[in-house]
Amino acid sequence: MTQQALQPDFEADFLLNQGAPFALESGAVLPQASLHYALYGKLNPARDNAVLVCHALTGSARVADWWPDLFRDGHPLDLEQHCVIGINVLGSCYGSTGPTSTNPATGKRYGADFPVVSIRDIVRAQAQLIEHLGIPQLRAALGGSIGGMQALQWAVDFPERVAGCFAVGTAPLSAMGLALNHLQRESIRLDPAWQNGNYDPAAPPMRGLALARGIATCSYKSPTLFAERFHRNPDRSGGNPLESHTARYDVAGYLDYQGRIFNDRFDANSYLVISRAMDTFDLARGYASEAAALRRIRARTLVVGISSDWLFPPADVHALAERIQDADAVCNYIELHSNHGHDAFLAEASNVRPLIEYIVQSGPVTALQKDCAGCAV
Amino acid sequence: MTQQALQPDFEADFLLNQGAPFALESGAVLPQASLHYALYGKLNPARDNAVLVCHALTGSARVADWWPDLFRDGHPLDLEQHCVIGINVLGSCYGSTGPTSTNPATGKRYGADFPVVSIRDIVRAQAQLIEHLGIPQLRAALGGSIGGMQALQWAVDFPERVAGCFAVGTAPLSAMGLALNHLQRESIRLDPAWQNGNYDPAAPPMRGLALARGIATCSYKSPTLFAERFHRNPDRSGGNPLESHTARYDVAGYLDYQGRIFNDRFDANSYLVISRAMDTFDLARGYASEAAALRRIRARTLVVGISSDWLFPPADVHALAERIQDADAVCNYIELHSNHGHDAFLAEASNVRPLIEYIVQSGPVTALQKDCAGCAV
Repeated sequence: MTQQALQPDFEADFLLNQGAPFALESGAVLPQASLHYALYGKLNPARDNAVLVCHALTGSARVADWWPDLFRDGHPLDLEQHCVIGINVLGSCYGSTGPTSTNPATGKRYGADFPVVSIRDIVRAQAQLIEHLGIPQLRAALGGSIGGMQALQWAVDFPERVAGCFAVGTAPLSAMGLALNHLQRESIRLDPAWQNGNYDPAAPPMRGLALARGIATCSYKSPTLFAERFHRNPDRSGGNPLESHTARYDVAGYLDYQGRIFNDRFDANSYLVISRAMDTFDLARGYASEAAALRRIRARTLVVGISSDWLFPPADVHALAERIQDADAVCNYIELHSNHGHDAFLAEASNVRPLIEYIVQSGPVTALQKDCAGCAV
Repeated sequence: MTQQALQPDFEADFLLNQGAPFALESGAVLPQASLHYALYGKLNPARDNAVLVCHALTGSARVADWWPDLFRDGHPLDLEQHCVIGINVLGSCYGSTGPTSTNPATGKRYGADFPVVSIRDIVRAQAQLIEHLGIPQLRAALGGSIGGMQALQWAVDFPERVAGCFAVGTAPLSAMGLALNHLQRESIRLDPAWQNGNYDPAAPPMRGLALARGIATCSYKSPTLFAERFHRNPDRSGGNPLESHTARYDVAGYLDYQGRIFNDRFDANSYLVISRAMDTFDLARGYASEAAALRRIRARTLVVGISSDWLFPPADVHALAERIQDADAVCNYIELHSNHGHDAFLAEASNVRPLIEYIVQSGPVTALQKDCAGCAV
């Protein structure tokens, strides 16, 4: 894809709480916080044509940069019809307030002092922006991975303000996922350049972040995909793994390369913050129980598992969908058959397009549909 | 298991090539090399009762220390009947020549100068020791993971000298396995204490080795096992992951603990050497093709996959068994159903016991059985 990405029609920063402090679930307070957002297409006069596309760990507000297929041929996102909104999450390094921002209290970068943020915090901030834009109800909130967590959190926390919810490759993170995130954070902290998080921006912990990205990449792909793509070939740049400890296999060269280029576009402290937000995602928090939280959902909900996803195993995603169904929400579960692993929602986006089209086009749940939600199917 | 492990009846070092240099597949030469080995039970006068049990990455010659179930109630390894041999692999830190040994050329530890060794090198060295012990033919060579690689390499390289071969959770390492091994080695090298491999033995790269062990542990276990054991519980020693970047989940505390105690018993440079030997395992090497290598096998062979093993996926293990069968060897494939992951051959050893008993008790392949090996089943 060398084609120039579709450009947003509007891009801006939004100051939360009109510049007053923004309190987080952790108990910490951001003295001042803003969200960077992008709009594709235009809001209609009724402002009922907004589709929020939530990004995953390393994404940005510029949805068309990382999920371009959603705009292809106007399906599922027709910009004549819809206004697509991307909002960079709190804690990121793509424009919203995060560890690379200046801490007003010190006049320096937050760095390691940036507090723990949660998916709930992220969504609560987004809701302020959506209100500011005068949107009474989102046509849909969509996303994969951490993006799907946000979409579901929207449906629970702001049930009247979202008509459709689409979440792919998403569930509360399992113990294995928590383990892998922990090891990724340890990789960053092990790099002597990390300096307890207070690194010079000109000398960031590149090796640690590359290693973290390498571990993550293994969890985003499937063994089958790696086998098909790399076999047991030696690294294409040469070297014999039998003869030298520094010689690599092709898959290792690939991971090293992915780690290196990741450093060009991501900040290590942001990685620590957002991977922790992924850890703590728990729809039950703030409610009497998970069931009580899920019973709040009014959105037409589509939950999608990926057959070869071992970061968010389809069994976990399916179980979440069943709990949503048990809470009498209008919820369907679909499983994508793919050898690609977790990343399939991006790498094989063409399979996701009709599913999103369904959510975006169906409109809100009707009273009749809602009455039937709890019926046996 | 607080019970005292069964002690070897004999334990010694064996000097390879009577002290002359030992050449490796890599082209490098060890000026002098020895193997540390242990015997349980006694060789009979005919010396046809020897069972070689090959260890995995971090094991030792003391088989009963890490696979005690094989000796339980005399099944499958009855020491009245068999003599069990354990041999520490070249490159290890459990007594055989490895990175922690003194390099005669420099008078110092080998450290990072220790060359690449292969499973073929390891087995060729073992064969010298077995010859020294006057054993014309092993009753069986057994092992899991890298131990299984050794057992299979024995059957290919020394077909007349091994009557039975048992390998569990073993195949040529897939691209995903190569990726994970690479990331583990990168973890060690990222630790500033590693010092390019020339660390002070009193100040080894503990954090890097712990991180490597953490990544490896994830690959040895299954998501299901982790979920059952740790759920999404916070670390049992306290701390709320929502409130602090340093607070952990229980699974993270477990991995950190496993990493810490691993440092008490393993050397980082040995880890680099043996994980590389795991990478380069390829039965084809040295022969015209893999099929040509596999056609050499005379041993009754049992290859076992583990249903939840994602380091050595059962499909890969099964495919290897089929290639052995296609090469007209007497080979069976069995799949263990387990939620435990790769480590099941140790953690659920009771299921492995009858399979080993079959190989140890069946004796050599008869002419009739061999004639039928290629028949359709």
